[in-house]
Amino acid sequence: MKVEPDDFEKERERLNRLVLSYAGKNIKRFFALDSSVYREGALDRKTKELLGLVASLTLRCDDCVRYHLSQCRELGITDEELEEAMAVALVVGGSIVIPHLRRAFEFWTLLEEGE
Amino acid sequence: MKVEPDDFEKERERLNRLVLSYAGKNIKRFFALDSSVYREGALDRKTKELLGLVASLTLRCDDCVRYHLSQCRELGITDEELEEAMAVALVVGGSIVIPHLRRAFEFWTLLEEGE
Amino acid sequence: MKVEPDDFEKERERLNRLVLSYAGKNIKRFFALDSSVYREGALDRKTKELLGLVASLTLRCDDCVRYHLSQCRELGITDEELEEAMAVALVVGGSIVIPHLRRAFEFWTLLEEGE
Amino acid sequence: MKVEPDDFEKERERLNRLVLSYAGKNIKRFFALDSSVYREGALDRKTKELLGLVASLTLRCDDCVRYHLSQCRELGITDEELEEAMAVALVVGGSIVIPHLRRAFEFWTLLEEGE
Amino acid sequence: MKVEPDDFEKERERLNRLVLSYAGKNIKRFFALDSSVYREGALDRKTKELLGLVASLTLRCDDCVRYHLSQCRELGITDEELEEAMAVALVVGGSIVIPHLRRAFEFWTLLEEGE
Amino acid sequence: MKVEPDDFEKERERLNRLVLSYAGKNIKRFFALDSSVYREGALDRKTKELLGLVASLTLRCDDCVRYHLSQCRELGITDEELEEAMAVALVVGGSIVIPHLRRAFEFWTLLEEGE
Repeated sequence: MKVEPDDFEKERERLNRLVLSYAGKNIKRFFALDSSVYREGALDRKTKELLGLVASLTLRCDDCVRYHLSQCRELGITDEELEEAMAVALVVGGSIVIPHLRRAFEFWTLLEEGE
Repeated sequence: MKVEPDDFEKERERLNRLVLSYAGKNIKRFFALDSSVYREGALDRKTKELLGLVASLTLRCDDCVRYHLSQCRELGITDEELEEAMAVALVVGGSIVIPHLRRAFEFWTLLEEGE
Repeated sequence: MKVEPDDFEKERERLNRLVLSYAGKNIKRFFALDSSVYREGALDRKTKELLGLVASLTLRCDDCVRYHLSQCRELGITDEELEEAMAVALVVGGSIVIPHLRRAFEFWTLLEEGE
Repeated sequence: MKVEPDDFEKERERLNRLVLSYAGKNIKRFFALDSSVYREGALDRKTKELLGLVASLTLRCDDCVRYHLSQCRELGITDEELEEAMAVALVVGGSIVIPHLRRAFEFWTLLEEGE
Repeated sequence: MKVEPDDFEKERERLNRLVLSYAGKNIKRFFALDSSVYREGALDRKTKELLGLVASLTLRCDDCVRYHLSQCRELGITDEELEEAMAVALVVGGSIVIPHLRRAFEFWTLLEEGE
Repeated sequence: MKVEPDDFEKERERLNRLVLSYAGKNIKRFFALDSSVYREGALDRKTKELLGLVASLTLRCDDCVRYHLSQCRELGITDEELEEAMAVALVVGGSIVIPHLRRAFEFWTLLEEGE
């Protein structure tokens, strides 16, 4: 059940290549747009990754959560900042979010250990 | 269909009083917790309201969106910051978010006009 | 915004007739099944209506909530029993459920007044 | 509660203009992409509109459903074809879809009457 | 794919400890509230666990389903009672619930065998 | 993580037998209905399987997606047709669909290799 950050990243890249091998221009444009919205702008990168993280938690997508956690880690988001974003996600999304919260904190710990 | 900010706020308060007239201690605690997670902490109020807004948009709850828009307005969030948070919500949540985006921008305009 | 129980019931019946005027055998079978699962069995009617109510609240469907509230009322479910089921729905589903909780308690009050 | 097709279309256009007056390039690109995926290709327009309709019904977005119903009508989709797509949406999405099915068939009737 | 009840319980406890090691007072309060709503009150424990189960099935969270199944088992809920609650969840939530129903009945069987 | 089509099919059949061993008449009727809506009618089988696929993708159920992919494959749906249906699902459902899209294209590749 434990997902190692390196394995996660490799699998994600392998499957993205597979998707793009099938993708026509609409799917390709969506992928470009999906990178574009997290770029620095009026809101900074950290805020945008936290937005992506909380949206992913309340929509309950573990892979999306793991991806945003990696980005949060690289941007230097602290444990305290993360915990507060998690608390917002938990209260908005309810107890159904808890299993995702468990896996999220485990992945966060593994990211920390891997540094 | 147009929801005026003042009417929205009055109706919300009226119905919150109704809920609390029925509420036992668990529902009351939930309401307290729901206020508590948006308080200033390691993350500032603006970031937390944007987290609440994006979660509400991707979960597609117009009333929740309107509430967070009011808070964003009071905290001085700019049109540009709002638009970027909206773009994250749209890309994460997909075209199904668009009708909520429409109503959100209309409410934002009404908040602006009411100042 | 206030939905009167009588209007709700009439509109629901009018539109059900409309759906059934278009429905082939699959949609008709689904409607029959939808009545069948709430019938008395190993679980009593009250429990089943509460199951329908909590599922409708966490999936956030106001019309479904109103329908199950009417049934709960007819079956003599008390304010205390209702409040506890609502608390489960709120904690499982999170703050995104609150606007539906507000409308649910208002409808419950109107059902009470109409007696 | 009854939504007239003409009013729906005007309101949709008015609010789309409002969204686009705030939109930066990411939201604009999303809107372009949202038109692009329904264009004739390996799958024909009718199939694509039915895909959009069923996705909108199972995700339970009335405005999205109404939009796709208008498109289905213009493309000459018959009552029988519509009913079968509706049946798939109902079985996949469950009874929680029923209130949306009611409003969908009402809008379909109004589209028919307006011709 | 088969999840053994003992492994499930141990993993759940291990990860709950991890979450609580990061948790500030809001997340801790949420966890307390999440226990509190299932306590005996105007509704009995069995009814409340069935409410939690059906909400978890319609929101499609396997871990939440497994937790409530364990509780249902301990409270002496019978196969017939369980099946009827499952049928409500299936009809409300639709065929998208079926994969979760499969895993739920398998876990229920394993709970039975472990006694 | 890679799910082989043969293993998937066997596991699905094993668990369906388990569900049906517990099922009363309501669950059995639902299963019958779930087969019935995909039968040839005013809409052909290919269109109906694509409807089921897109609904499953936007509701984000991997097992449902895999089942409909198998059916699509048997019905001779081409890579281009599949990609266009996927693009609709992605735009309607948003980036949260991407992890499911990855697993869907992998399963599609495995179905192709198994022929």
